[in-house]
Amino acid sequence: METPGTNVAVLGLGAMGQALAAAFLGAGHRTTVWNRTTGKAKSLVEGGAHEAATVEQAVAAAPLVVVCLLDNAVVTDVLAGTDVAGRTVVNLTNGTPRQARELAESFACRGAEYVDGGIMAVPPGIGTDQALLLYSGSQPAFDRYRDTLAVLGTPQFLGTEPGLAALSDLALLTGMYGLFGGALQAFALAGSGGVAARDFVPMLQQWLAAMATNLPRFAEEIDTGDYATGVVSNLAMQAAAFPNLIHVSREQGLRPDLLMPLHALMTERVAGGHGAEDFTGIVELIRTPEENK
Amino acid sequence: METPGTNVAVLGLGAMGQALAAAFLGAGHRTTVWNRTTGKAKSLVEGGAHEAATVEQAVAAAPLVVVCLLDNAVVTDVLAGTDVAGRTVVNLTNGTPRQARELAESFACRGAEYVDGGIMAVPPGIGTDQALLLYSGSQPAFDRYRDTLAVLGTPQFLGTEPGLAALSDLALLTGMYGLFGGALQAFALAGSGGVAARDFVPMLQQWLAAMATNLPRFAEEIDTGDYATGVVSNLAMQAAAFPNLIHVSREQGLRPDLLMPLHALMTERVAGGHGAEDFTGIVELIRTPEENK
Ligand SMILES: NC(=O)c1ccc[n+]([C@@H]2O[C@H](COP(=O)([O-])OP(=O)(O)OC[C@H]3O[C@@H](n4cnc5c(N)ncnc54)[C@H](OP(=O)(O)O)[C@@H]3O)[C@@H](O)[C@H]2O)c1
Ligand SMILES: NC(=O)c1ccc[n+]([C@@H]2O[C@H](COP(=O)([O-])OP(=O)(O)OC[C@H]3O[C@@H](n4cnc5c(N)ncnc54)[C@H](OP(=O)(O)O)[C@@H]3O)[C@@H](O)[C@H]2O)c1
Repeated sequence: METPGTNVAVLGLGAMGQALAAAFLGAGHRTTVWNRTTGKAKSLVEGGAHEAATVEQAVAAAPLVVVCLLDNAVVTDVLAGTDVAGRTVVNLTNGTPRQARELAESFACRGAEYVDGGIMAVPPGIGTDQALLLYSGSQPAFDRYRDTLAVLGTPQFLGTEPGLAALSDLALLTGMYGLFGGALQAFALAGSGGVAARDFVPMLQQWLAAMATNLPRFAEEIDTGDYATGVVSNLAMQAAAFPNLIHVSREQGLRPDLLMPLHALMTERVAGGHGAEDFTGIVELIRTPEENK
Repeated sequence: METPGTNVAVLGLGAMGQALAAAFLGAGHRTTVWNRTTGKAKSLVEGGAHEAATVEQAVAAAPLVVVCLLDNAVVTDVLAGTDVAGRTVVNLTNGTPRQARELAESFACRGAEYVDGGIMAVPPGIGTDQALLLYSGSQPAFDRYRDTLAVLGTPQFLGTEPGLAALSDLALLTGMYGLFGGALQAFALAGSGGVAARDFVPMLQQWLAAMATNLPRFAEEIDTGDYATGVVSNLAMQAAAFPNLIHVSREQGLRPDLLMPLHALMTERVAGGHGAEDFTGIVELIRTPEENK
């Protein structure tokens, strides 16, 4: 277990990389930074960071190499040919589960331990309790650097399958965009009747918090595949009422685009004979590959 | 202000009407019930309710007439020609703001006070703190029966414009379906990588609760129309990352239908020159009538 004082290298000083490096520095870690174009390290160097002239020098300076670049193609390019043997690479660049598995394999071949990560925060949130960081891959490497990584935000290790962090990251973002899209459509609808968003938001937040308590039941139904037991509000009824939402959006002069695909899935599921079951059964359609539609 | 002992008539004994009547009965109100087809009043009558043979008799039996029928076309039909003068009609049938305004006008002509309502609960939730009931229309009538109506669930009076309850009801449902659709897609994505929904749900709930704290800021931006100040995660960046969600859903064998319209709106807004602004500006597109697209 390392304590403050870990040498850490940060590759990439975009908005996120700068926030990561600043958090390591602030916690007293000897921090070496590198960025493709120079000039972005200035305030970090003033704060005590060491700027490496090359990626090779940065990697040589620290056993823990934290990478945060535009995408994983850039990660592969930037680290190509660099001697990473004996190092731990923690890659916080956004990517796919497949890319994470490929990078884990390639770094293992080169003698490095690999941890993939997903940052559930914006740069100003780094270093606060609000930031959640998901990790997967080498468990020994994660355990060794857990305390060091904890300065970035709450670390959560999801397992040794390297793609798990990317998968959960993308799934959480998917859920968030559902929430955000629904909220925008709701604000627009309230506004169309003269209700200001700031007057509507307390009720909306309270309602969404109440509705989110249904999610554990949804999860249970999805895991068991039993959508038929104890249904209080069946899909057929919901599918019959849903066009009202679309109709009223239009009547109030709004575009109902965001509502359309859920309605189509509800209708398709009812047509498949599942109207008496719960709403949650729609997940079965989402799981149907498009070529089988 | 009335106290327990108010005479109340309930028209409509579907799943919801039965729950409403049972709650009034349980609170000690003299309750008269009516339903088109007979037989649905049995257990209510056993509990002390009076069954009226006709709508006219039911309306004559109580100054407060609570209506919960399939839709507002049925409400109009059922109450056509009935003497409602001097009564308060509280209509808890789901409908549109426009229908609420029309009903308010028509009942006013006939000498009745009209309150429109939206039930934010399923039948088993009626009579519990979990139930929220939205009201709009006649303020004196609402004030008179507030305590009586409170036995159904927490009453919230939104204003004298009769359409406000229906509007907020539909806007809350719109927000809920965004949340639910996003959650289903998120569960499907997690599941595609072998993560059980019940293992994923605590993280998803925590994340969504954290993300919901952004809604007051969204509301402020929407009300002021200022989407450009203090942006920490601009739309162009989000629009560039969003196809990754679609791509990974496909890569994992899932249908990305639910993700498509938000992506289209993000792209359209960026193309309109608003990439440096906040995500929230998408509401401007939602507000653009479809014929102007
Ligand atoms: N910002 C957020 O809110 C947020 C949140 C969660 C996750 N992330 C993820 O964090 C990662 C970095 O995001 P960011 O906000 O820091 O992005 P950014 O500000 O655009 O920075 C991009 C970084 O990638 C480097 N880069 C791009 N192309 C390169 C190339 N061909 N060769 C070498 N370096 C290259 C840039 O170097 P130059 O300075 O030389 O261009 C810069 O260091 C992304 O994967 C992002 O999805 C960001
Ligand atoms: N259930 C929920 O979760 C829920 C939640 C919020 C709001 N609501 C709203 O509450 C209202 C009632 O819902 P519900 O669940 O009770 O529905 P339901 O169980 O289907 O009951 C429908 C009621 O409408 C009556 N009806 C239908 N057509 C009629 C006609 N032509 N003439 C006379 N009566 C007619 C039915 O009478 P018969 O028995 O004679 O068919 C029955 O009393 C709806 O507007 C619904 O949207 C329901």
